[in-house]
Amino acid sequence: MNIELVTIGTELLLGLTVDTNSAEIARHLAARGVRVTRRTSVADRGEEIRAAVKEALGRTGAVLTTGGLGPTRDDITKKVVADLFDAPLEFDAGVWDSLLERFARLERKPAESNRSQAEVPRGATVLPNRWGTAPGLWLTGQPGLVIMLPGVPLEMRRLLEHEVLPRLAPPENRSVIRSLLVRTSGVPESSLAEQIGDIESEIEPITLAYLPGLEGVDLRLSAWELAPEEADRRLGSAARLLRERAGNHVYGQGESDLAELVLDGARARGLRLGVAESCTGGLLGARLTEVPGSSDIFMGGVIAYHNAIKMELLGVPEATLAEHGAVSEPVARAMAEGAVKRLGVSAALSVTGVAGPGGGTPEKPVGTVWVGCALGGVVETRRSRFAGTRHEVRARAAQAALLLLYRKLSAGPVS
Amino acid sequence: MNIELVTIGTELLLGLTVDTNSAEIARHLAARGVRVTRRTSVADRGEEIRAAVKEALGRTGAVLTTGGLGPTRDDITKKVVADLFDAPLEFDAGVWDSLLERFARLERKPAESNRSQAEVPRGATVLPNRWGTAPGLWLTGQPGLVIMLPGVPLEMRRLLEHEVLPRLAPPENRSVIRSLLVRTSGVPESSLAEQIGDIESEIEPITLAYLPGLEGVDLRLSAWELAPEEADRRLGSAARLLRERAGNHVYGQGESDLAELVLDGARARGLRLGVAESCTGGLLGARLTEVPGSSDIFMGGVIAYHNAIKMELLGVPEATLAEHGAVSEPVARAMAEGAVKRLGVSAALSVTGVAGPGGGTPEKPVGTVWVGCALGGVVETRRSRFAGTRHEVRARAAQAALLLLYRKLSAGPVS
Repeated sequence: MNIELVTIGTELLLGLTVDTNSAEIARHLAARGVRVTRRTSVADRGEEIRAAVKEALGRTGAVLTTGGLGPTRDDITKKVVADLFDAPLEFDAGVWDSLLERFARLERKPAESNRSQAEVPRGATVLPNRWGTAPGLWLTGQPGLVIMLPGVPLEMRRLLEHEVLPRLAPPENRSVIRSLLVRTSGVPESSLAEQIGDIESEIEPITLAYLPGLEGVDLRLSAWELAPEEADRRLGSAARLLRERAGNHVYGQGESDLAELVLDGARARGLRLGVAESCTGGLLGARLTEVPGSSDIFMGGVIAYHNAIKMELLGVPEATLAEHGAVSEPVARAMAEGAVKRLGVSAALSVTGVAGPGGGTPEKPVGTVWVGCALGGVVETRRSRFAGTRHEVRARAAQAALLLLYRKLSAGPVS
Repeated sequence: MNIELVTIGTELLLGLTVDTNSAEIARHLAARGVRVTRRTSVADRGEEIRAAVKEALGRTGAVLTTGGLGPTRDDITKKVVADLFDAPLEFDAGVWDSLLERFARLERKPAESNRSQAEVPRGATVLPNRWGTAPGLWLTGQPGLVIMLPGVPLEMRRLLEHEVLPRLAPPENRSVIRSLLVRTSGVPESSLAEQIGDIESEIEPITLAYLPGLEGVDLRLSAWELAPEEADRRLGSAARLLRERAGNHVYGQGESDLAELVLDGARARGLRLGVAESCTGGLLGARLTEVPGSSDIFMGGVIAYHNAIKMELLGVPEATLAEHGAVSEPVARAMAEGAVKRLGVSAALSVTGVAGPGGGTPEKPVGTVWVGCALGGVVETRRSRFAGTRHEVRARAAQAALLLLYRKLSAGPVS
């Protein structure tokens, strides 16, 4: 089955919003063997939406739209599509009741404009939205199939998963497009590529792509239109070969998040974890606590942005700060040690660095970061020099701290 | 001038890559009065690229493509477009020399496949790429204008800035597309829309869009194809009217970040700021320290995820925790008070809530968040109930805490 995506929103054409929905939808559809053959974005204007949906239907007979289902005046997708299908909009009491329930649950009152969200093109199937106010719609007719989803990523995602994919689910034995991620950190793309060498011919027909990002370099293996079992088997053996070559730069596979792996490792050893953050300012704690269930391992931390806090809450000696400066090995070490003591934890991570854009010196240029890890009475530290903006340096610093602990927990060599 | 974007790459249609180029290009073009009227993504297949480019030229006469200019077999954009323009590909010695120089500089040898990158459609202007191997191309002819850029974001960005925009740059007095954001927080989209009412007819030809997100609802005013001065004048008066209607839900205009506004307000009053975070786990500190120069105002904080840390580092009384639970008004209050005392700051924000997905109870369901703000010996607290995932609840909680302090600092009524 082929389908086209039409994402609707003037902000997409002005470049004020990055269209992440399209990629997510395409990935899920591909995994079920539904191929997205074209993606189009148009503004919130009736004639443009109409033209894009009509042309797409003409090419493939199936279109999935996102956006334009909200309560405000610029939300006109439903109206345009209903018109294209000659299906008048009708008030749906069931949809309205769910809306009222949702508002009651959130202790709010619906606005008059929300009533329009309960209007449904005649003959359409309502895809109930328990995560927002705009239900999805599934409309078939002479022009073909149009699936309308809201543009809010969370709502789109849930509706896709719970309402759309089950309706599209293919029978057995269909060819699929599948990918597998091998995640590395702490190594530049070019060194990694050199180390891995020319693996492409050995893993054919699986393809390999290098995806450098703030958490490291991800290696994406893809299987194209193979039977499900063959795709999985070939991806599995390609991943094994790739991991052999990439060695201990690899920390995970699939959707692995390094913070989650660190928490798992700490949990397995019965550790209680704390952090002491200077340049990351809370980002490391935020990474760890973003993981559901982190509260049984992660106790808390100190954001020691100012030196006074480093001294008072972490016990970093004033003399150490004066002699070596805040961005230094001895301070990273003292912060990690102080965190263990003051937070009453068995393992602690520390970060201190020059995030920029100001504050760099010839000896400690912007991007210089020390991370520390205290575990079992030993403190290990590591210096890095990160490229990029303030945002990038901070994200990379948090990742480097997690990596340090991960390597100690997985008892692999710390390179 | 209108233009369409055609982004080329099978990875885009499989959803393995998020198309961030489109948004970036659209933003830069809009700022120069060039309107992107449609965005299309197609796979690396000749007939699909050809169809998309041809249709786009038919609608607007101008197309900007990204992708498909690399040295590998699936890079066929140049070939397809050359064919469409009846312009044969010719080897360009100048392009080849630059390529050789680049390889020499990086101590690499060009592959045979790189020679194809020196082929240029007859009559095309080469846009030199000093950041990669694929030059951009600018081709005009009977079908219209096609600008081809590489898909690698960094190379695309540099070529756009250095080679494309100057060629598109309008002379004086050209019409522009400009937008202005009025940012609100702490109010649902539908209530805000009701409060603002039917403002559209009053601000015409300026248009209004509601953009709900994790930091609140942004209101985007746009001027379409007006002279620069008229656009600014009309946007200014529309913004004034909108701010009147939206009242104190508005916290900023333009690119304002609430964390930055809070730091500015604190700086103006000579305050030193600290945080005490439970469910946000460092996110509030990370928001504040993401702002360059925050270190003169923001001293640090305590991530009091576990109750033991709330007691030991913030002095929250054990009895208060036992009686009211960690997610309660008295605990939010005690955390803010404790932060002022223990961190030695003059203003402190606290957050405690149920981020989910677990941990909710009938009395305190997931999404229940208390934020507190201690300033000048007074602690103000506020309860919210946020919808969404763990990620969303946490982001909204951090924003709610910032909003509480912002309103106190701007001396507006705290609603």
